[in-house]
Amino acid sequence: MDEFALIGRYFAGLCGSDDSIVVGIGDDCAQLRVLPGHDLVVSIDTLVEGTHFLPGTHPEWLASRLLGAAVSDLAAMGAIPAWFTLALTLPEADEAWVGRFASQLGRSARQFGITLVGGDTTRGPLTLSAQVHGWVPAGRGLHRRGAAVGDLVCVTGTLGDSRGGLECQLAPEKGVNDSLLERFFAPQPRLDCGRRIAAHASACIDISDGLLADLGHVLAASEVGARIERRALPLSPALVSYCGETQARDWALCGGEDFELCFTVPVSRWETLQRDLAGGGVPVTRIGEILPATEGLQLADGGKPCPLPGTGYNHFASADDRADKE
Amino acid sequence: MDEFALIGRYFAGLCGSDDSIVVGIGDDCAQLRVLPGHDLVVSIDTLVEGTHFLPGTHPEWLASRLLGAAVSDLAAMGAIPAWFTLALTLPEADEAWVGRFASQLGRSARQFGITLVGGDTTRGPLTLSAQVHGWVPAGRGLHRRGAAVGDLVCVTGTLGDSRGGLECQLAPEKGVNDSLLERFFAPQPRLDCGRRIAAHASACIDISDGLLADLGHVLAASEVGARIERRALPLSPALVSYCGETQARDWALCGGEDFELCFTVPVSRWETLQRDLAGGGVPVTRIGEILPATEGLQLADGGKPCPLPGTGYNHFASADDRADKE
Repeated sequence: MDEFALIGRYFAGLCGSDDSIVVGIGDDCAQLRVLPGHDLVVSIDTLVEGTHFLPGTHPEWLASRLLGAAVSDLAAMGAIPAWFTLALTLPEADEAWVGRFASQLGRSARQFGITLVGGDTTRGPLTLSAQVHGWVPAGRGLHRRGAAVGDLVCVTGTLGDSRGGLECQLAPEKGVNDSLLERFFAPQPRLDCGRRIAAHASACIDISDGLLADLGHVLAASEVGARIERRALPLSPALVSYCGETQARDWALCGGEDFELCFTVPVSRWETLQRDLAGGGVPVTRIGEILPATEGLQLADGGKPCPLPGTGYNHFASADDRADKE
Repeated sequence: MDEFALIGRYFAGLCGSDDSIVVGIGDDCAQLRVLPGHDLVVSIDTLVEGTHFLPGTHPEWLASRLLGAAVSDLAAMGAIPAWFTLALTLPEADEAWVGRFASQLGRSARQFGITLVGGDTTRGPLTLSAQVHGWVPAGRGLHRRGAAVGDLVCVTGTLGDSRGGLECQLAPEKGVNDSLLERFFAPQPRLDCGRRIAAHASACIDISDGLLADLGHVLAASEVGARIERRALPLSPALVSYCGETQARDWALCGGEDFELCFTVPVSRWETLQRDLAGGGVPVTRIGEILPATEGLQLADGGKPCPLPGTGYNHFASADDRADKE
């Protein structure tokens, strides 16, 4: 057995077992049982060194970021996490690195309630892909389509923090804020929120490309427009103190990878939704409303129209390197 | 929308639709319906430039090789293919390259009866991962464990051809044989065989690391040994003519990526199995028998013990670069 086969053994230790796992790691395929009356939801996410993270990034951070970002897609569907697979390409069989990566992957997986069931470890430039699987009641689940004129536009948590965490790495001379770095490297998928809002929301997406870009996907899929109030955007004190309020609001609009949920809800459901969210520990903020498609996407500042900032989110690589998440 | 987002659109055209696909590409997750009474089987495979294929390899070949190899894991479980996702990391947004890759991916997917349901396209060193999903009747499916003392060891098709195809690339001055190259780049997963043998076989694996290495996985999982008859190994005329019989038999034992099935079957089921395989178009050959674990893995040549050749299969990279497929 060669170095890479040995490396693969680090992950075997992460594999849990439960009634849904008929055969886990160690066969040609994992064999899995979907809960009766439920649909399967799946999503795959890739992180590439130099594009999504800087060389030398701690393996713990890569593990929490990879799995957090992937599981966030399950949250956006209102799904219950079930299993994931890992495709790991490594430049060398560095057991210390893999041990640290695997330990954090295990911690994140336990936190999110998701179990590793298979993978492939290969040699090459550092690239990490996680495919996550979850369940939703058959025929249900939150989608991008479904927003209707008059619905409220809402977001969970605070926005722009991850962009602040990116800046802490790009320009450490401006100061480094640990809570912003944490938002960048350890995204907290809004699984509980996703499930709570699933009964009320008309459409939902997780914010990976930036609020305006991702809301744009909802608007396109739902064939509607929207107006967002700049002053309503939820900001963390850490971000405002790091970069000032004006920059913070721009990053809240255009910064990527916050992995909060952006969803729409009929006005009539707003109060019930708030009751159902009580005690969840994650604030939900109304930031705008859905308009007819002809109105497009508009921004207001204290009720007055204001121009949209340039959208688009840069990774470490140049602007046109932005990944497309289908 | 940037270059990579545009590239992603090439794949949207590949997405089929059927009753099992509630939501396909274009949302946070695909939402899928597993056939009632069936388990889900999943496997992920990665190809890395420089490790698994040479720079400049035609995109059509990468598409057929990626999907063929991944679907082969479904065949080894006796599964019915259902859906796949694609994580594609590209050094540049080369539309011509992607168009060719996507066209072949679509042809291979149609051939194998599997539908693209999602993916992620990112910039970075050329790396391709496919996760495949299939179905088996609940609680059934072929596994590596289950081989019993006295069972016959069998393989589908011919062995060593893919290793010959690799040699055609590494040493083109020795001559290039198109049918061997085809075996390397366009693996034909034995889906039909896998389903036909599922009712009879006691254990099964697909040959990706080489017969001896993969049979070794079956022996370990089943806690048994085996004796293989070197003269019984099925060879193609193309391979024998390319490299001579002695080399061909060595490659049949140790060459990787043939993507044939190696399975074990009780002697009492052999005749029924042959009847059930009739008309499938793929020959099945008895190459040995299962022994007690204490006997280990043995090789015979015309019934006389002979030494095992060095196992292990080299990609283009050095020997310790061998991928671990969990």
